[in-house]
Amino acid sequence: MYLVPGVGLKHEELERRRRVLNSFASQGFSVDIAAVSSGPLSIESYCDEYVCVQPTLELALKTEQTGYDGIIIGCFGDPGIEAFRETLKIPVVGPGEASMHVASMLGYGFTIITILKNVVNPLKVLARKLSLEDKLVSVRVIDKPVLSLSENVENTKIRLLEEGEMAVKEDGADTLVLGCMSEAFLGLSEFLQEKLGVPVVNPVGVSVKTAELLVVNRLSHSKLAYPPPPKKLVV
Amino acid sequence: MYLVPGVGLKHEELERRRRVLNSFASQGFSVDIAAVSSGPLSIESYCDEYVCVQPTLELALKTEQTGYDGIIIGCFGDPGIEAFRETLKIPVVGPGEASMHVASMLGYGFTIITILKNVVNPLKVLARKLSLEDKLVSVRVIDKPVLSLSENVENTKIRLLEEGEMAVKEDGADTLVLGCMSEAFLGLSEFLQEKLGVPVVNPVGVSVKTAELLVVNRLSHSKLAYPPPPKKLVV
Amino acid sequence: MYLVPGVGLKHEELERRRRVLNSFASQGFSVDIAAVSSGPLSIESYCDEYVCVQPTLELALKTEQTGYDGIIIGCFGDPGIEAFRETLKIPVVGPGEASMHVASMLGYGFTIITILKNVVNPLKVLARKLSLEDKLVSVRVIDKPVLSLSENVENTKIRLLEEGEMAVKEDGADTLVLGCMSEAFLGLSEFLQEKLGVPVVNPVGVSVKTAELLVVNRLSHSKLAYPPPPKKLVV
Amino acid sequence: MYLVPGVGLKHEELERRRRVLNSFASQGFSVDIAAVSSGPLSIESYCDEYVCVQPTLELALKTEQTGYDGIIIGCFGDPGIEAFRETLKIPVVGPGEASMHVASMLGYGFTIITILKNVVNPLKVLARKLSLEDKLVSVRVIDKPVLSLSENVENTKIRLLEEGEMAVKEDGADTLVLGCMSEAFLGLSEFLQEKLGVPVVNPVGVSVKTAELLVVNRLSHSKLAYPPPPKKLVV
Amino acid sequence: MYLVPGVGLKHEELERRRRVLNSFASQGFSVDIAAVSSGPLSIESYCDEYVCVQPTLELALKTEQTGYDGIIIGCFGDPGIEAFRETLKIPVVGPGEASMHVASMLGYGFTIITILKNVVNPLKVLARKLSLEDKLVSVRVIDKPVLSLSENVENTKIRLLEEGEMAVKEDGADTLVLGCMSEAFLGLSEFLQEKLGVPVVNPVGVSVKTAELLVVNRLSHSKLAYPPPPKKLVV
Amino acid sequence: MYLVPGVGLKHEELERRRRVLNSFASQGFSVDIAAVSSGPLSIESYCDEYVCVQPTLELALKTEQTGYDGIIIGCFGDPGIEAFRETLKIPVVGPGEASMHVASMLGYGFTIITILKNVVNPLKVLARKLSLEDKLVSVRVIDKPVLSLSENVENTKIRLLEEGEMAVKEDGADTLVLGCMSEAFLGLSEFLQEKLGVPVVNPVGVSVKTAELLVVNRLSHSKLAYPPPPKKLVV
Repeated sequence: MYLVPGVGLKHEELERRRRVLNSFASQGFSVDIAAVSSGPLSIESYCDEYVCVQPTLELALKTEQTGYDGIIIGCFGDPGIEAFRETLKIPVVGPGEASMHVASMLGYGFTIITILKNVVNPLKVLARKLSLEDKLVSVRVIDKPVLSLSENVENTKIRLLEEGEMAVKEDGADTLVLGCMSEAFLGLSEFLQEKLGVPVVNPVGVSVKTAELLVVNRLSHSKLAYPPPPKKLVV
Repeated sequence: MYLVPGVGLKHEELERRRRVLNSFASQGFSVDIAAVSSGPLSIESYCDEYVCVQPTLELALKTEQTGYDGIIIGCFGDPGIEAFRETLKIPVVGPGEASMHVASMLGYGFTIITILKNVVNPLKVLARKLSLEDKLVSVRVIDKPVLSLSENVENTKIRLLEEGEMAVKEDGADTLVLGCMSEAFLGLSEFLQEKLGVPVVNPVGVSVKTAELLVVNRLSHSKLAYPPPPKKLVV
Repeated sequence: MYLVPGVGLKHEELERRRRVLNSFASQGFSVDIAAVSSGPLSIESYCDEYVCVQPTLELALKTEQTGYDGIIIGCFGDPGIEAFRETLKIPVVGPGEASMHVASMLGYGFTIITILKNVVNPLKVLARKLSLEDKLVSVRVIDKPVLSLSENVENTKIRLLEEGEMAVKEDGADTLVLGCMSEAFLGLSEFLQEKLGVPVVNPVGVSVKTAELLVVNRLSHSKLAYPPPPKKLVV
Repeated sequence: MYLVPGVGLKHEELERRRRVLNSFASQGFSVDIAAVSSGPLSIESYCDEYVCVQPTLELALKTEQTGYDGIIIGCFGDPGIEAFRETLKIPVVGPGEASMHVASMLGYGFTIITILKNVVNPLKVLARKLSLEDKLVSVRVIDKPVLSLSENVENTKIRLLEEGEMAVKEDGADTLVLGCMSEAFLGLSEFLQEKLGVPVVNPVGVSVKTAELLVVNRLSHSKLAYPPPPKKLVV
Repeated sequence: MYLVPGVGLKHEELERRRRVLNSFASQGFSVDIAAVSSGPLSIESYCDEYVCVQPTLELALKTEQTGYDGIIIGCFGDPGIEAFRETLKIPVVGPGEASMHVASMLGYGFTIITILKNVVNPLKVLARKLSLEDKLVSVRVIDKPVLSLSENVENTKIRLLEEGEMAVKEDGADTLVLGCMSEAFLGLSEFLQEKLGVPVVNPVGVSVKTAELLVVNRLSHSKLAYPPPPKKLVV
Repeated sequence: MYLVPGVGLKHEELERRRRVLNSFASQGFSVDIAAVSSGPLSIESYCDEYVCVQPTLELALKTEQTGYDGIIIGCFGDPGIEAFRETLKIPVVGPGEASMHVASMLGYGFTIITILKNVVNPLKVLARKLSLEDKLVSVRVIDKPVLSLSENVENTKIRLLEEGEMAVKEDGADTLVLGCMSEAFLGLSEFLQEKLGVPVVNPVGVSVKTAELLVVNRLSHSKLAYPPPPKKLVV
């Protein structure tokens, strides 16, 4: 189950994303998608990250109760991932976490190409939380808000190409990661990979296959690491 | 202004805390206190941390508009501190952050004594986010939920003493930090300091004086570090 | 293709392992197995690691030429992984690398349980090469050579249980990793997981699914990171 | 008590500095100033740092015996701070240490702007000793010796502005620290802060308020960390 | 005994190198040289490194049995050093390891100037294995294969000078290390040192004197660190 | 030239130490010894370290002017090493620095066995300054002041043996370093090495041979790293 923490996506776009997600799934697996009904339009700052957690958490709980095998957080910043893991037993995949680990296996240093300068520091902090800060060469931005990405795909493509090239030439990255789910759902990673000659990690496909990896191996997060929160009233 | 992110404190306790806070303030400064009207009773897990941010953020915004000089987050885990800094221009003091920096100036390694095992990992992650993980020797727990701390103060005192002694003898700490505001408001730090022979950092006094330090020096967080979030609707 | 770098496994055991490998594969994928015809019986030291690379490298090259989609190195120490990546274009999965990255997603700190003290330092160095040394809590050994593991499975099971328990209780691990392929092929990870209450990462299943993840996402190692070696004679 | 470790300041300048120091003090606190009578003119190298310690240490001891509540070392490099802490019980504030900790609370990375290339490495080593090397983005120099700073304040101002701008634009700093007390006593930090749009930490004000913070909280360095030196003759 | 792991050197060149090695030896010490009879022509990639170990290991074993006091690996990448130490009791000097430790004593940060981009990442990984990655400022290449270095010494000299200058000016190195034995045997380090005004570490002389240091101090690697490999057949 | 920074050694003991030093020197090298005429009796705290620098610095300057090839600081804590390097052109060997680098080449982790708890933190800070903190497993003390070490050599021997054994068994060290020159001059390292089965690094011999290594290789510290201090009056 892929959980969208923002309210800014229309029904058709959700349906399109469901299809993209399932194009990565192995036989025997299918990915569902659901969006919160309240919260920010998109996740573009720490504020958005904190505010989106509560409604997504409720959605996640329902998902587990319905019997889904695992959850993918629908935002590259992995907002609230520790809270999900405290609450749920089924595996919780953070696209940022999974993508940075995969990128770490492909080379010596990766660059994340994301949307706005507002999320540069949050992504650096995420890498630090994952102990992968030594592998993160730089975070670059194409300087476009989430909801405008698909308005002019051609321009998004050019900007991704430009920043990707600078990441390799100026920052010394040998691997790239698309650092925003809406960016990733545009389906440009193979095009970029071919043009730039370095691996381009797409968090969509990586998240689906990481979820499968965990489910098939009967693995989930350690409850010693994420103990269930003490029971009490929330007013 | 000291902002309590939970709803579990009665009016008299809030008043008592206001007095304690002001006992640390220099002439010319006074500290007000306010609690959110919705949210968790207390902050004892990642879930609580994430859920408490939205209502506290609204309170914080009002505080700045009212003309206060700065804000102290009323929880040692500094929940949502980055969101506050994105939103506000006035300085935002995180008691965990301020206390760990002060403890770092007093010795080579400190232990945090906190309440429940649920917050051990969150506090270690906080130290890592602050780049102070090398100074954090250990996190120890007295194993009592927030709201029970004041029920049996004598027992809380004994448990703090026991864990403090083990921190020094077994973990090699030379400095201690009280890792929960409700623990700190019990006013036991000087007693512990005397008994244990090592500095015991009280986040209450440290936060008040750090707020003063910033205000007097006309310092606040960098807006390059915490740019204001892009304007948009939150549904 | 799963490549066994040692010569110590009989035909039936290779067949059995092929079946275990395929039990993790999604539909559309199948895993083949091949062993070198010269080299050490098993990999239990730096000496074994260095010596096994040349014959395995030749086998790997043939594998790529035959048209396989990817390669899994049949040893948890990932011997020669950089040489494979310099030589090949198809993805090369190191079971140690893949398992440590997966374990890093499940908790705050993992312990590797391996066979002999000879490989303790090599595995710590591997974690350091991967920049995951902060997540590696400890390496523990059951003190049995590779080829004796299956002779007395019951005893191996007990030793794994004992060391797993100590890893959790004494070292503070919240996640375990089986640190030897022959150990992992015994199929004990779910049993251990149930008994110990923490995730137990099995490098066999993790490697198969990591290979799939890379192939489905059309990812392979960066050739900027692993440039092809200069052409020249080897006498 | 603010202790000047060099002999190069005239009486009027000491008086002026006393006034600046007290402009930061809260009611109930007053700051005295004293300079050593032998030692280097100013502190601009490791040699100066080592040589100034002995006379300053004697002055510090007298200060404690006179009944002062704390000591501020009058040099940003914090020369001899560990020796002061071994010898004294009252808190010892190092302006470099205090300023770097405060700067760490204001953003993700700070640049120190200091005087001469001779102190660049000493300041990097100081950051490393404090475990804050990850927060120190760069050290920049205005290339003027201590005693010439006040000769042409206008030029000093321009140079600080130039280096501050480069720190932000080229090095990626989001916060600045004035890395020399004589630089800081010129009172330019607010001007720079306004012009550059990032916080500029002034070690003078930060040191005074850190001393107050410690005294009000009844905190001093741990005697486990800085045990008193064994008694013996110094010939 | 200096062991050449490649087969590409002619008899006269081996003799010349023996003379250079002995020019660094103290009275009472003499250095012998031997090359493997099979293996790669030179060591210019991970592949070469892995492949050269087995024949060199056999040569090393004979060396110890003959009664030599220690061994120097004849390649800056220290290929197989852990395997040598597992197998032998006499000290094993890795020129890369010894040179990086010496360079660390001469300044705050060194640049390695090596031959081809293929060995840049291997040398960075080597520095990381040694825990000296913080001292390694950069790795620069003159872009010439090993066996061509001596063909046009004048050009090699110019390229070393160019890269050395850029290391100091652009990367901020204060110390240089020649990162290839064939480069080092050209005898250019003093010329470079004079021209560039920074220390230039020559791994040839450093290795000879490190071997002496260990022998005179009766030191060798710890057998707890490098336990002998379990006895077994290699087919 | 070996410079003793304390005044506590009698003429005969200085002569004895000269003989020990020369027993490590190669033909063509001889080591002289000189002690300061004012300063602390011995170096057992940060206070001693800071206070001893000025007189030793004057002695060092004379040594260079006399034509000596290099200097060894006569204290394991390397007090004032940066000041010596700023002032002198000839190589300056710090026994602590040299010994820790050599120990790093012999295993994965070393323990320093020193005299008093007062120098435990200074030595940890020294390791951190050298970027070798990851290799330093622990610092252990025999709890005897410098000047009493030779009074009861038998007891010193037993205490070294006890602490060495605990370092290996409890702390996991694979290599030991004698962390005090007066301890090292007792000549017990080979005895300890034999008894404990791990390498025991003697800073006396290591320093002499490191000085030779530097002189023979015409290496000295980088003047970019340690620029000469600005000329000015010291009153």
